[in-house]
Formats: sequence, C-alpha cells, structure tokens
Amino acid sequence: MPRLFDKITIAGVGLIGGSLALAAREQGLVGEIVGLGRGEANLRTARGRGIIDAYSLDPREAARNADLLFLSVPVSAMAAVASACAPVLSTAAVVTDAGSVKGAVVSDVEAALAGSFPFVGAHPIAGGEQAGAGAARADLFEGSPCILTPSRGTPPEAVRKIRALWEGVGMTVVEMDVDDHDALLARVSHLPHAIAFALVNALCRNEEIVTLSGQSLRDMTRIAASPAEVWSDIFVANRERLKTALDEFSAAFETLRKAIDRGDRAALRELIESARQAQAKLR
Amino acid sequence: MPRLFDKITIAGVGLIGGSLALAAREQGLVGEIVGLGRGEANLRTARGRGIIDAYSLDPREAARNADLLFLSVPVSAMAAVASACAPVLSTAAVVTDAGSVKGAVVSDVEAALAGSFPFVGAHPIAGGEQAGAGAARADLFEGSPCILTPSRGTPPEAVRKIRALWEGVGMTVVEMDVDDHDALLARVSHLPHAIAFALVNALCRNEEIVTLSGQSLRDMTRIAASPAEVWSDIFVANRERLKTALDEFSAAFETLRKAIDRGDRAALRELIESARQAQAKLR
Repeated sequence: MPRLFDKITIAGVGLIGGSLALAAREQGLVGEIVGLGRGEANLRTARGRGIIDAYSLDPREAARNADLLFLSVPVSAMAAVASACAPVLSTAAVVTDAGSVKGAVVSDVEAALAGSFPFVGAHPIAGGEQAGAGAARADLFEGSPCILTPSRGTPPEAVRKIRALWEGVGMTVVEMDVDDHDALLARVSHLPHAIAFALVNALCRNEEIVTLSGQSLRDMTRIAASPAEVWSDIFVANRERLKTALDEFSAAFETLRKAIDRGDRAALRELIESARQAQAKLR
Repeated sequence: MPRLFDKITIAGVGLIGGSLALAAREQGLVGEIVGLGRGEANLRTARGRGIIDAYSLDPREAARNADLLFLSVPVSAMAAVASACAPVLSTAAVVTDAGSVKGAVVSDVEAALAGSFPFVGAHPIAGGEQAGAGAARADLFEGSPCILTPSRGTPPEAVRKIRALWEGVGMTVVEMDVDDHDALLARVSHLPHAIAFALVNALCRNEEIVTLSGQSLRDMTRIAASPAEVWSDIFVANRERLKTALDEFSAAFETLRKAIDRGDRAALRELIESARQAQAKLR
C-alpha cells in the first residue's frame, strides 16, 4: 500500500498505540515511528520489540516534524498532549486519536489545536483488557469496526488519510456524529464495563467464589480487568450518555427482579427467551 | 476403573446428561445406559452418537432394574421423574441429579422417594449455554468442581459411589450443606445469568448495537444464550438466596453509579482498581 505518513508520533505506546504501529509498518503505511510516553520502561519494551524506532518523554522531541500525531492516552490527557506537541509538528500534520469517548475529546483537542492542524476523531473498536506495549500485536484491528467522527470543518483530505490508515490495518470504517457515537458506546461498551466492575466488587468478598467460580463467571467479568485510569476517565467523559444506559439496564434488571420476587415462571421464561434470541444476533 | 453401576438411567439426555454418559462409559464406570426423555428427536440423536444404548419415553421402561437414576431435567421436574421411575428401579439403586439448585431439589426428591432409595444431591459445575445431546462431550467435566449435598440420613455408601462417579469423570468433589450451596451458586452463577439476561434485554432494541458490538460484549453476554426453561426454574427454586445476591449487586452498582454521577474520578479509580484486582483472582 502507498505510504500515508512519513513520520508518525504515537502518544501512548500501549495495546492500541503499539498495535497500530506494528500494523501500519507491516502494511507500509508509515515511515519513521516515534513513541511518546511518561514511562520509560514501557517505551523501552516498545523499542525492543521493534514497535517504534525511537522514543522520548519530551513532546517537543517526540513530535518534531511528525505529519501524524496519534493520541492513545487516557481521554482526559489528550488535549494537553496535543497542545504540547502542536508547536513542533510538520505544517502538513494531521492529528487523530483512539479514544472511547468522542464528544469531550473532539471539542477539547480541537480547542487545544486552535485550528492549526486538522483533528479527525477516531475510535477503533478493538483491543481488550490487556495493557502496555508488551500486549501489542499487528493483527489487533483486523476485521473490526472503526468509527470516525469528523467535525463539520474537518478538511476532507485529512479524513481521507485517516480512513485510509484504519482501512489499511484491516478495519471497516464508518463515519458517525460524535453524539451518536457516545450514545452507542455508552450502551455497547461503557455500560457492560460498569456492570462487570460492580459484579466483581459485589462478589469479591467471598473466598469460596474464587475457588468455585466457573468459566462463565470468568468470561463475564473478563473486561473488569481493564485499567482503572483509562476507565475512570471514560466514565467521567461520557457520564451523561452513560447515565441513560445505566438507567436502561436498571429498568430491565428491575423487571427481571420483580418476576423473580413473584416466582413468576411464565414471565421469567419470556424475559429469558427474548434475551436468548437477542444474544444469538450478537455472534 | 472398576464398574460402579450396571445399568444407569439418564433422565434428560442433554449437555450434562449426555456428557456424563460419554465420560462414564469411556472410564468404564457404568454398564448399560438408557435414556429417558420427552422428545424422541433428541434421544435418537443421543443413540445415534452412541451416548446411550437405548431409550424410552416411558419412565417405567427406561428405569427398569437400573441401579443408578441420574436426573438431569429442569429442577421443577425432578421430583415427578423420580416418583415415576421409583417403582421399577433395582432394589440397590441410588438416585442423584445435576441440578443447579439443591435446597428445593433435595427436599422434593427425598419426599418423592419416601425413603425407598438414597438420594445424593449433586451439582457438577461445568457445562455452558449449549443444549441437547448434540452438544455432549466426554471431557466436559474434566478439572471442574462438583458439589455434593448429602442429607444427614443419606447412607455413606451411596455418597461414596456418587463421589466415585464424579471423580471418575475428572471432577474435584466437595461436600457442602444445601443452604451454603444455594447461597454460593446464587452469587457465582444465578446472579451473573440474571445480569446477562437483563443486559441483553436492555440493549437489544438497537440494531446498531448488533453491528458494532465487540468481542467483549459477546463474551459478557454469552451465558444469556442459556435455555429459558432451565433458568426460569432455577430462578424460582432459588429465589430467596438469589434476592440477596441481586441486592448485593444492586448496592455495588449504585455505588459506581453515584461516583459516575458526581464525576468523581478518584472514587471511580478506586472502585475499578478493586474490581481489577479481584477479577485477576478468578483466573
């Protein structure tokens, strides 16, 4: 594939940032790759694995002359990182991200860039609860969807290049309004994470549970192993939409609870059967 | 291994009943295996796969001279099946089950047997959301725990044979009081199922969720694919214990929801970190 960017700076060389570096390099989409981070140990791992060519803890060093700045840091840190890098980017640079919340990120980062560079909000829906450069892999994005949330003023050429980047690493790209994205992700991802955290917190007092829990409980709570810094940020940044999703779940949970309280077998059978049929569509 | 039973009757040749037949035969623990069921199609599948030697829809035919009656039907049907089979069992017969609730099952089945045969309540914690003889496999139980809940009056020889059966198919057997079992399973299994059903019911209205849901939502809701008849029964039979578990989850969910409402990053980080650490112990 033709090269899209000559020098890219990856802020946050974790599972997502590291995997994008591996995949983009493998596909010939990028030239030099420089890592930017707060922790040298992780950056050393990334360089050792050949994920990045070089790294710096200093934004002005790491981002110098880059024509792509990729933000994969916790969502509350994105605007500050963009601000710190902007003065040294190539004049042709595009800025993008991989945040799980788009409304807050797009407005904060666009404000931080103050029109100097185009920002194309992106959310590759891939990954998992592992963290760090050690977990990165070139095939992480293959076959999964990526949502882009360009603003009205985003230059089409910048959107085209970011679309080509994600398509180039195997994703199916869809464009979406930021609010639609945030409402959808509140339901499909942020709510399930909240439930998994609450379930584990409710269960973990009991030592027997650890010994006698089966595969199904492990599968169901796997996402509760996700990093606290990332997820506390996501919950706060998307809290209005998440509240709606939490309420929708609470209503469904109450309906089920009442049928259990009543010992209402017929109602329970109907509620479970509707869940069973809907779940089958997720596969 | 030495043979434990000469002729066993399996009431309900589904995932659990069928897998026990396959595993027990493979280990030489049983002689003839006869299936009892309501649906001939499933029993034909079971015979076709060599899971059972013969079958009948009539309890008095299927259970004749059996020295083990294995009940793997929905929990509300167990006592009636035990009653129907009792008149024709071998005088040396032992009755056992695989129900996910033990309090209600033990008292109902013991009442149905009226002291004629020993009953050893058992709960092999294995399986999944698949159903039917087609899903049965000989290695289903290997390495998983099995809980036995003998009553005070259960003859030790009957307990010993049922323990040998489950150990013989690879399970780690623990004995437990029925109430302890039901309280534990309410938390470790029945609550997670209730949550999965409610989550899918809350989400399923939205077509986009189906397209854009990731692997994590599929994993988390996998148990919502479980059969409605089995699970409505379990919820009703264990509803007192389940209520407690539902309340415990609701309290943890409310704590998280309030921290989200307040936008309290520090509290969220702590709640998520405690969940992350507890989840790691489940592996």
